[in-house]
Amino acid sequence: MIAANNPNKKSWIEVDLLSEFPIQNIPFSIMKTSNGFAACTRIGNFVINLDVLNKNGFFSNLSLEIFSSEFLNDFLKLRKSVWRSVRNRISDLFDENNDELRSSDLNYSEYLFNIDEVKLTMPVKVGDYTDFYSSKEHATNVGTMFRDPNNALLPNWLHMPVGYHGRSSSIVLSETPINRPKGQYKKEDNDQPEFGPCRLLDFELEVAFITGEGKPLGQSISTKESEDYIFGLVLFNDWSARDIQKWEYVPLGPFLGKNFASSISPWIVTLDALEPFRVKGPIQEPNVLPYLEFEGNKNFDIKLEVSIQTSDFEKKVCASNFKYMYWNMAQQLSHHTVNGCNINAGDMMASGTISGPTSSSFGSMLELSWKGTKPIDMPDGSVRKFLLDNDIVKMTAFSSNNNYKIGFGSVRNKVLPAI
Amino acid sequence: MIAANNPNKKSWIEVDLLSEFPIQNIPFSIMKTSNGFAACTRIGNFVINLDVLNKNGFFSNLSLEIFSSEFLNDFLKLRKSVWRSVRNRISDLFDENNDELRSSDLNYSEYLFNIDEVKLTMPVKVGDYTDFYSSKEHATNVGTMFRDPNNALLPNWLHMPVGYHGRSSSIVLSETPINRPKGQYKKEDNDQPEFGPCRLLDFELEVAFITGEGKPLGQSISTKESEDYIFGLVLFNDWSARDIQKWEYVPLGPFLGKNFASSISPWIVTLDALEPFRVKGPIQEPNVLPYLEFEGNKNFDIKLEVSIQTSDFEKKVCASNFKYMYWNMAQQLSHHTVNGCNINAGDMMASGTISGPTSSSFGSMLELSWKGTKPIDMPDGSVRKFLLDNDIVKMTAFSSNNNYKIGFGSVRNKVLPAI
Repeated sequence: MIAANNPNKKSWIEVDLLSEFPIQNIPFSIMKTSNGFAACTRIGNFVINLDVLNKNGFFSNLSLEIFSSEFLNDFLKLRKSVWRSVRNRISDLFDENNDELRSSDLNYSEYLFNIDEVKLTMPVKVGDYTDFYSSKEHATNVGTMFRDPNNALLPNWLHMPVGYHGRSSSIVLSETPINRPKGQYKKEDNDQPEFGPCRLLDFELEVAFITGEGKPLGQSISTKESEDYIFGLVLFNDWSARDIQKWEYVPLGPFLGKNFASSISPWIVTLDALEPFRVKGPIQEPNVLPYLEFEGNKNFDIKLEVSIQTSDFEKKVCASNFKYMYWNMAQQLSHHTVNGCNINAGDMMASGTISGPTSSSFGSMLELSWKGTKPIDMPDGSVRKFLLDNDIVKMTAFSSNNNYKIGFGSVRNKVLPAI
Repeated sequence: MIAANNPNKKSWIEVDLLSEFPIQNIPFSIMKTSNGFAACTRIGNFVINLDVLNKNGFFSNLSLEIFSSEFLNDFLKLRKSVWRSVRNRISDLFDENNDELRSSDLNYSEYLFNIDEVKLTMPVKVGDYTDFYSSKEHATNVGTMFRDPNNALLPNWLHMPVGYHGRSSSIVLSETPINRPKGQYKKEDNDQPEFGPCRLLDFELEVAFITGEGKPLGQSISTKESEDYIFGLVLFNDWSARDIQKWEYVPLGPFLGKNFASSISPWIVTLDALEPFRVKGPIQEPNVLPYLEFEGNKNFDIKLEVSIQTSDFEKKVCASNFKYMYWNMAQQLSHHTVNGCNINAGDMMASGTISGPTSSSFGSMLELSWKGTKPIDMPDGSVRKFLLDNDIVKMTAFSSNNNYKIGFGSVRNKVLPAI
């Protein structure tokens, strides 16, 4: 067992029993400080400045500047063994049976902050961002709606984790407002396209993993090696303009229908912290090609929820689970690099919309409202087919067992009118 | 007229009459130095270390570190007026009528190097890379081959510069060897895909522009403003694995068929240097939407050539021209940002394959050999449908008028066998 995952461990920081951030989580992010930025973690409702701990000698063998950058990328360039030993070390320092940090000369006020006092910022500088399309239920729903219900999946889908490159520059943090995008769309009964604010604005419920430093261009990462290159996971809202997307995407894929914004939750939950929540994934039939074969449980049981909030109400519209993914992260990363494509520390690879088997587990308004044909009732008597201006989309995620809960917090963004 | 474009200017550095790098070019790149990197330019066969000139006070108002980075990105973050004044200043310093630099205490050997002694490196750290599809001839050829010759262009093509996001991490410099990628492909007479080295490896002749710092997320750049955000251009080989691409690309676009490598020429030729070579582009019919309208000549007359080299021969296979582009760079950038997508200094936006009207002007082997049905004869008696291992693909580009020639140099890469 990874030492930091010991379920019997308790922290000397008080942690609510239902907290998503017990001492077994230890996620990573970046916080603003008075003179810059610092890497940080969280236990209960307290944010811990890792740069201060490092500069005061609590992490041996780490460079003094590793936690004082604007982004975690330099830390991500180190190997998995370092990530693991740092997380284990944090776990020890905050263990209730360990006095080392508490009895040191360092005052709490220098490294421990209430979550409400802290401004978190983008944890990584995303080099390249890839979006997969790995939920069979989602791909089937889309194929059924837009193509042929009897041949909903395209021929390649069962043979590879289909994916495409997205836009890195427009990935923003939770709480950043999202302006409704403008663009071209063509109405069904019209020959010519029009230009204007998107009429079919949507979310996509996704989880993204963040990579460490890969291999040189030309080399591949096997499914066996893949998880060594995955640092951790965040919640990911792949905002989508369905009308813009529909008109533009043939033959080169989604572009302006997606690249106006994607948003992420601030805490990167490590793959190590999710270790106790491994589960078997769906059976893959037909057999995959040898380079996509894998051993062991590569799916993760992470409960996912989406709600729409306004000033008047909050309505849960979707409950899904990361375990539904047909293609797992190890397969995604191996497929991505099998042609020699190189990855770098801080790349982000999102799952694609995570829809489950039931209609309440669909991960987008497109599917939930079935292309707008089944409007969703809201508590104030209004309905939603797609998103309205001033709607807030909130996604949350957590794993739990008999011992504890490991949470992601949330990604939560408000839709503003088009500029 | 931009001062540095004065055709009567001559440099005190000797420049061959047919040189692609007269004092009217002044392109930018990055060179390795004994202790790091330096921004540089080129006149004739000499590379000029701009960092040395800056640190010795020859550029007023520039920060001392601006030219000592590994990449030009910090310089690109400055405005067009700064780029222009720096280029004009370089032009003055090397003007035969100006003694300021020559008579200074600074020794030639500190800033002037023969091109053969210099190692150039990637001039920018590419944040996001976008590939357009803006040659009507290319899109028509592809549509004719793979779909319907009578409806070769898809419905959206005449209404917008169709594009997609590509992979930044695998953009490499000229002379970097390219390993043949491996991947999935499906033979026509087979139900199941296979895995192996790509059998249909191709180049795509493209030109890419490199951007300055854009506007905040949510805002757009108009066609009128676009060229203020374009620093300069490079030659771009969008390496393509046709068999991998064909099997994977529906519905989300090209992925592993492209992201194993793209390669660029090292010198960024500024948009200012290309000013004398503006020409009218093709007539756009039907009329474009208002946000894509523009005034003036936005196409550029840049002659492009591709040759295949082996140890035994060099064979020119394509002569095209950047002026054939249906959608111009101003339209591409405005389209890209019309939904609020933000751009950053150092983004790269490639044209898509630049095919002209005649069969000898097609910009890919796919078109030149018409899907392999018209093999191209080589001087040694062999033929090419697509690229063979050990083939070298060389692309060159230049503009010329009665006064001088402005060249890009070349992007030249050898195909190595699959690893």
